[in-house]
Amino acid sequence: MHPVGLAIIGLGRWANVLAGVYERSDNVRVITGFSRTREKREAFARRHGCACEESLDAVLARSDVEAVAVITPNDQHADAIERAARAGKHVYVEKPIAVSIAHANRIDAVIRETGVTFLCGHSARRLGGVRQMKRMIDRGEIGDVSMVEAVFSNERGLELEEGDWRGDPAKAPGGPLIQLGVHQTDNLEFLLGPVARVTSVGKRMYTRVRNVTVSQTLLEFQSGQSAYLGANWVAPGVFTINVYGTKANLFYSLDFSWWSRSDVTDAHSILRKRAFTQMDDDPDHRLLCDTDVEFPPTDHLRDEIEEFALAIRSGGETEVGTRTATRSLAVALAAVKSSAERRAVEIQEILGE
Amino acid sequence: MHPVGLAIIGLGRWANVLAGVYERSDNVRVITGFSRTREKREAFARRHGCACEESLDAVLARSDVEAVAVITPNDQHADAIERAARAGKHVYVEKPIAVSIAHANRIDAVIRETGVTFLCGHSARRLGGVRQMKRMIDRGEIGDVSMVEAVFSNERGLELEEGDWRGDPAKAPGGPLIQLGVHQTDNLEFLLGPVARVTSVGKRMYTRVRNVTVSQTLLEFQSGQSAYLGANWVAPGVFTINVYGTKANLFYSLDFSWWSRSDVTDAHSILRKRAFTQMDDDPDHRLLCDTDVEFPPTDHLRDEIEEFALAIRSGGETEVGTRTATRSLAVALAAVKSSAERRAVEIQEILGE
Repeated sequence: MHPVGLAIIGLGRWANVLAGVYERSDNVRVITGFSRTREKREAFARRHGCACEESLDAVLARSDVEAVAVITPNDQHADAIERAARAGKHVYVEKPIAVSIAHANRIDAVIRETGVTFLCGHSARRLGGVRQMKRMIDRGEIGDVSMVEAVFSNERGLELEEGDWRGDPAKAPGGPLIQLGVHQTDNLEFLLGPVARVTSVGKRMYTRVRNVTVSQTLLEFQSGQSAYLGANWVAPGVFTINVYGTKANLFYSLDFSWWSRSDVTDAHSILRKRAFTQMDDDPDHRLLCDTDVEFPPTDHLRDEIEEFALAIRSGGETEVGTRTATRSLAVALAAVKSSAERRAVEIQEILGE
Repeated sequence: MHPVGLAIIGLGRWANVLAGVYERSDNVRVITGFSRTREKREAFARRHGCACEESLDAVLARSDVEAVAVITPNDQHADAIERAARAGKHVYVEKPIAVSIAHANRIDAVIRETGVTFLCGHSARRLGGVRQMKRMIDRGEIGDVSMVEAVFSNERGLELEEGDWRGDPAKAPGGPLIQLGVHQTDNLEFLLGPVARVTSVGKRMYTRVRNVTVSQTLLEFQSGQSAYLGANWVAPGVFTINVYGTKANLFYSLDFSWWSRSDVTDAHSILRKRAFTQMDDDPDHRLLCDTDVEFPPTDHLRDEIEEFALAIRSGGETEVGTRTATRSLAVALAAVKSSAERRAVEIQEILGE
């Protein structure tokens, strides 16, 4: 296939990581980029051997730009997406889809109206170990699943300075919950289906910014199953998913050092299965055994952009469209509301806003 | 020291496990036992080479019985302890201390009134890895702790039949929370101090009994820190504690197969520390490294009975007295109430009942 011409909007650290990943793909080609900051756009053009534009209009005016990747702060997603879609450009957007359900609904409306292809970057569901857990659950290999625990932490909150949008509760509500945890709300719905309600405690600890840095949430699913989600910005990197089944448990963990190197993230992850290797009527004569589970490797950041490019060429749907991405955002925002109001919050209450 | 003469009250599986442990100690000697079921008391006497009695009165009438170990169902603890203490016998009781705060308060009152030595079997805080985590936290080795996650699961709920007291919400409120999780509520207070309030979701899944089998709880501490506690009766054994610090994380896990073999529980446990081995201003040039932490081994079930015996001989206090044990029970009961009433519940509300 002819590679999809891509422009990147918002040229911070993550845009540079993604541009590096996209260079490994034959399906897309980064043509140009735009940032309001001149130094950032010139550095980006130099580093990735592409053009850069002085305005979003200039990006959208280029006929060789077929799609945009929106990597701006959360509260700027909706505006950029509306303009790009109305200019006929397909849209990739970094997670979370938007800063609010009102913004997410604007995005959903413009995508439906214009018919452009859309994908939201919930890449974590594409990790090889997460895919494998989903297969094992669906095949009944671990019996009936009762609960799941998912955690995503890093040290970001220790370094944030006032002025960074991530430290602003209006732009990153929930702090690590919306910036990291939203990967896990997506994974949890990928594994167990829709969340019905959440109860959450968020705390501001050990940081210079105003935002919360520690978030712990209980999730109840429409299926009757339940889960815990920990999101933390003041501790070394952790990314884990534990699944408790009647026949076996699964423990997934990846080394966060390698998160942005998506070609080797899987190689730095491990999936273990715990089951009985010896069963007996007497509980004191039962033996548990942990075994490593092999799984086909993926490249979570490359795979999602390649699916996006293929959907553009074929006209098909993508795995993470506006509805799926809006649900993940809604779960995170419900948790923020639950913590503020000290009560369980229904996801429908957030989606209906 | 002259070994303390011990009688065991309630002769189920766990009483036999403990009697086996006590045979490895020079500080105590199991003299006799009592169960209302003749088969159980005769089997116990045969297996452990001791006497058995046909009534609690007969046990308490023996002058060579200096102390009792109460291993009956939770709702029978208070009656047995009142009778034993008034007969001048020292009291060890299995966790939880009682089935309710009213019962726990009766136990506290009779222990204070009679002045006998008392210890509640929250043995998990004596595990070598738990002791080591406490030392590392107190020494500041992992920086400032923001959150902790503790889990205790086993497959018990899959096998329980109607008629077993553990399946009765009146006798084991919270199911796995009060039977397993109470070890972790004690560990969490051991590590972080008093819990202020909890929010909990309990569910009855995959079981023949009426009791809940899955419990997930968020705990907020007086210190401002927070924690998650998972207790599950419908999955293979898990016992983990994760501590998130600003400098490092600690991950503790033991192989539940070896829980009742307290001489080797530590040998089947692991404590890992995660910290940065390479730090850089660029988050993409940081490397995490997990290292195993060595710790002095303990024998959690032997150590607690030996401390009990030494306190009897010296007249000193034990580590887990009525107040500490009542707090752990209160946290579990607050979680049960939180789940039933779908709101956060203050521990003081439970303790003040």
